[in-house]
Amino acid sequence: MNSLGNKWIFTSFGESHSAAIGGVLDGIPAGMHIDFAMIREALNRRAGRSSNSVAVSPRAVREEDEVEWLSGVFNGVTLGTPIAFLIRNRDARPEDYEALKHSFRQGHADFTYQAKYGIRDWRGGGRASARETAARVVAGNIAAQHLAKQGIHIQARLVQVGSETRPEHFDEVIARYRGEGDSIGGIIACEVTGLPAGLGEPIFDKLQAHLAFAMLSINACKGFDYGSGFAGVSQPGSIANLRSGGLLGGITDGTPLTFRCVFKPTPTTPKALAQLQKDQSNGQMVNGKIVNRSDACVAVRAVPVVEAMTALVLADILSMNKDI
Amino acid sequence: MNSLGNKWIFTSFGESHSAAIGGVLDGIPAGMHIDFAMIREALNRRAGRSSNSVAVSPRAVREEDEVEWLSGVFNGVTLGTPIAFLIRNRDARPEDYEALKHSFRQGHADFTYQAKYGIRDWRGGGRASARETAARVVAGNIAAQHLAKQGIHIQARLVQVGSETRPEHFDEVIARYRGEGDSIGGIIACEVTGLPAGLGEPIFDKLQAHLAFAMLSINACKGFDYGSGFAGVSQPGSIANLRSGGLLGGITDGTPLTFRCVFKPTPTTPKALAQLQKDQSNGQMVNGKIVNRSDACVAVRAVPVVEAMTALVLADILSMNKDI
Amino acid sequence: MNSLGNKWIFTSFGESHSAAIGGVLDGIPAGMHIDFAMIREALNRRAGRSSNSVAVSPRAVREEDEVEWLSGVFNGVTLGTPIAFLIRNRDARPEDYEALKHSFRQGHADFTYQAKYGIRDWRGGGRASARETAARVVAGNIAAQHLAKQGIHIQARLVQVGSETRPEHFDEVIARYRGEGDSIGGIIACEVTGLPAGLGEPIFDKLQAHLAFAMLSINACKGFDYGSGFAGVSQPGSIANLRSGGLLGGITDGTPLTFRCVFKPTPTTPKALAQLQKDQSNGQMVNGKIVNRSDACVAVRAVPVVEAMTALVLADILSMNKDI
Amino acid sequence: MNSLGNKWIFTSFGESHSAAIGGVLDGIPAGMHIDFAMIREALNRRAGRSSNSVAVSPRAVREEDEVEWLSGVFNGVTLGTPIAFLIRNRDARPEDYEALKHSFRQGHADFTYQAKYGIRDWRGGGRASARETAARVVAGNIAAQHLAKQGIHIQARLVQVGSETRPEHFDEVIARYRGEGDSIGGIIACEVTGLPAGLGEPIFDKLQAHLAFAMLSINACKGFDYGSGFAGVSQPGSIANLRSGGLLGGITDGTPLTFRCVFKPTPTTPKALAQLQKDQSNGQMVNGKIVNRSDACVAVRAVPVVEAMTALVLADILSMNKDI
Repeated sequence: MNSLGNKWIFTSFGESHSAAIGGVLDGIPAGMHIDFAMIREALNRRAGRSSNSVAVSPRAVREEDEVEWLSGVFNGVTLGTPIAFLIRNRDARPEDYEALKHSFRQGHADFTYQAKYGIRDWRGGGRASARETAARVVAGNIAAQHLAKQGIHIQARLVQVGSETRPEHFDEVIARYRGEGDSIGGIIACEVTGLPAGLGEPIFDKLQAHLAFAMLSINACKGFDYGSGFAGVSQPGSIANLRSGGLLGGITDGTPLTFRCVFKPTPTTPKALAQLQKDQSNGQMVNGKIVNRSDACVAVRAVPVVEAMTALVLADILSMNKDI
Repeated sequence: MNSLGNKWIFTSFGESHSAAIGGVLDGIPAGMHIDFAMIREALNRRAGRSSNSVAVSPRAVREEDEVEWLSGVFNGVTLGTPIAFLIRNRDARPEDYEALKHSFRQGHADFTYQAKYGIRDWRGGGRASARETAARVVAGNIAAQHLAKQGIHIQARLVQVGSETRPEHFDEVIARYRGEGDSIGGIIACEVTGLPAGLGEPIFDKLQAHLAFAMLSINACKGFDYGSGFAGVSQPGSIANLRSGGLLGGITDGTPLTFRCVFKPTPTTPKALAQLQKDQSNGQMVNGKIVNRSDACVAVRAVPVVEAMTALVLADILSMNKDI
Repeated sequence: MNSLGNKWIFTSFGESHSAAIGGVLDGIPAGMHIDFAMIREALNRRAGRSSNSVAVSPRAVREEDEVEWLSGVFNGVTLGTPIAFLIRNRDARPEDYEALKHSFRQGHADFTYQAKYGIRDWRGGGRASARETAARVVAGNIAAQHLAKQGIHIQARLVQVGSETRPEHFDEVIARYRGEGDSIGGIIACEVTGLPAGLGEPIFDKLQAHLAFAMLSINACKGFDYGSGFAGVSQPGSIANLRSGGLLGGITDGTPLTFRCVFKPTPTTPKALAQLQKDQSNGQMVNGKIVNRSDACVAVRAVPVVEAMTALVLADILSMNKDI
Repeated sequence: MNSLGNKWIFTSFGESHSAAIGGVLDGIPAGMHIDFAMIREALNRRAGRSSNSVAVSPRAVREEDEVEWLSGVFNGVTLGTPIAFLIRNRDARPEDYEALKHSFRQGHADFTYQAKYGIRDWRGGGRASARETAARVVAGNIAAQHLAKQGIHIQARLVQVGSETRPEHFDEVIARYRGEGDSIGGIIACEVTGLPAGLGEPIFDKLQAHLAFAMLSINACKGFDYGSGFAGVSQPGSIANLRSGGLLGGITDGTPLTFRCVFKPTPTTPKALAQLQKDQSNGQMVNGKIVNRSDACVAVRAVPVVEAMTALVLADILSMNKDI
């Protein structure tokens, strides 16, 4: 449930307002030097601190993602044993969320968690909070460092915001939606170079199936396609089949791997919050003020998360394919 | 690699020209009556025999998918032990594929299998052949029967062929591409009703992640989205978030589950085959004639496969969620 | 439930009186030549046909284990795809077992299967029958052939029958118990040579844990130990620790791997059957005659099964350890 | 590798001298009240603090196993999300182990880890240290609390030390070996009451196979048997089969579950340490003094570890069997 992978196994833990979030990364080869600065840089990108973009919310300024390493690394080198790490939840202001105790935010997992578990940590999304993706970025960056040593490089970028496809206009579009108290979706494209041909599995464990799984596991992701993708539906076979996306029959063909994923607009908008929340337990209106700290376009900060998940999938599959 | 699921575990085997294809379905509850006629009906839909559509190739007439049951069923009732079955490969005419022995068809997995394994069954696609999906349909139909008893119903349908979205014109579009010796893609939409709220897992094992995985594991599938999907990118949050697709935070919200997947045009077209095949071992042209038995739009026959994979995913997740 | 392994994955199916038993072996490297004669020889040892020993029951003469290969092998060489095979159940005489329909044999799984599933195939043990081990022997022998090519050899032998430890007296002891309408247990010792040092995993997936799991999964096996084992309890550390059994901390140390497992006497004895069977549904005595076809010492025929399970465990762990 | 279970999944991390050891427990039902005092009591038993026995080493006084809870519990109640916890390594005196940097202790995993990983944390056993079992006790105690609510109780006890089987003489025997600078093994018996009939899986996932796996995964455990076990080899079937040990065909029969496991003497004895250590890198003698903190009979403190592992196995199997 909270683990991913077969040999490079990443287990994630933590709620947005528990003592910490973190993870355990198992199956990493021994003897690998970890570049901690690269991990910090990826976390900064996720937190929005590496950009002056208006797309980034004030949350970025407050979040400090200091990674505490618990095990598996000795003098900066991996031991082959599980690498455990945590990031303290310092920004815990549960009083901001008091109004959510008995209400369910639209478009959020509040209701579904309650339906599944009969209990939930109502403080700021709890386990469903996007804060959990920080742990993915830490683990994924270690995977990316491992891949880079083998000449495999992953590059994701935002290619569409709303119906805008010109990057130089993205900030402007986001600012407009933010100004209206609304939010907007985005599409991220990812390219992987340096993969050898013959990587992946046929039938169920096709490489594209694992990538789709990993992308759809990211909060707010609503779709995945690769190669000719959805656009290819209107092209004849003689043309569409020229765009393999780097995979045939679930296995790499030696050309760059290309895929896209779409992120929905965040549902936590000032406009949505202005709607009076109804207390499910007694039908009364909730008067408490819900502070909004969300981004107008979550796709912006999802870019390093897409890269991290891609790296975890590829490191795992490379590891599983070693003997063939 | 050739297994799917955690409790409802389906293992698939067989090449297009080995003695048989088939599967083993493990984890099925004991005491379930199997409706063999329903399984046959689904196989007929996959084979194209239930339609007079021009979309269907002559292959449908020849394929006879008689299921031989080996174990797990006693007097028509499941024992709780593995259900093994096979379908003989009667249509084995490897001489039709002799020309492929040393060449790789464009857009096919011929090359990638060779790269991965260093060996392949070159007769008709071997393990990568879409014939393997017949085993999925058998297993998936058993899952669908199990779900139906709990009021859960799955319905997939073709909603787009090329750029055409009016079903009554699909045959015409397909006939046109076939006439040109070419092929065309399609989009299948699937709806699931009757799912209880609270089904699924947060974080990695989100229900949409499992569905995406299952769909992308189908031959020729190039993409998946659910709810507002890719189209939702251009809608503001205040609108896009009204279309959850039945899932929030990876867990069902009690509304119908809706998703789409796109299938590329088949790469095996008369046009493609007319291109002279190059023998990879010696660089010479291949003179042998390659008989084409493929459909002009594989999405037509993929509809029951989409339903089967959806049923397998849902039966597995229902089973895994029993104790929560 | 019916699968074993992480990369060399063996799935078993079949009841003693269903159409067939068999299995699917997934994760086998491509390009391996299969020696079918070796598989037959191992099956003969399991069936007791390679011995003139009085220990062997008349069942051996009747059982014919012809393996039918369904997929994964092309011209005698593995394709890297799943190898599926079956063995028909020709000796199906369910009428011999009619008396068992409503009764539970002592020491057998009749009652526990009924308790678990609420239904069972009462014919000859059904899924719990030792006949299932024939499928293990087929799969295990393929694994053993793979290991042999890497210089790894597995040798199991019967080292104790009752309290007798002199092999040349085993037949005599077994004949005595058989003559009394009773049965007797045995201990099998197994040695593996040629394993490289550094194989295995620390913590949960210790190599001895996997071996213990595999041995305890064999019908009638009641215990496992390795190296100094149970006998080592009365030796001081300065002596006991000299007998590592080939493993330290779950990982091979380069010395031969040695372990033992104990098999209980078969519970299906003439003496047990002479006891009148009680019909659980109405409390009446069952008059039907139950034919006994069981061996007086099942440990004799368990030797190739121990070797098969050892081979499956080692092939899997070797495969999982390739990248470290 | 460092995870156990299919639905109740326990992941363990940490070296004896890394920042912390700990674990993540996933798949726990939501809404369960945790009794933290019970966990502490089990940890005390493992640390030897609850006994005045001479069997306990001075290490017990120093070890303080304060559990820090990171996630998954909110107001003392489980959320259904992963429970992460850690125990700081306060007793880190790596200088005591400096002499081990280039040498391998006999009977320890020092050499095999080096062979496997090419690197190791040489401080006090690192990952192979028995300290790791503290994390198992924490997770196992949560499982035991869950089982107790369903009327299932686990009780392990030391039944043999050396060749002594009278508990009131155990301290004396241990003291004698300690006095000689040596160590001695022990046998632990475990009984589980309250299990329903029908629990477990046939074929590979037999309940006894999972128990054997879990026991053999404990440091120093060299063997496992259940019911009539190894002793049953010399009993005729008519007698041995009366002692099922609570399991038939891998499935519980409703009688108490009984099994035993044997623990070897610790290899870290003053006698062993007095032997001059050889530096593997240069063949020179190592002069550094190695401080011995080990128990003379590790089986004493293994009792709560056996209970913890039993609880984890049973909670997992109960959870997996919910839908049948």
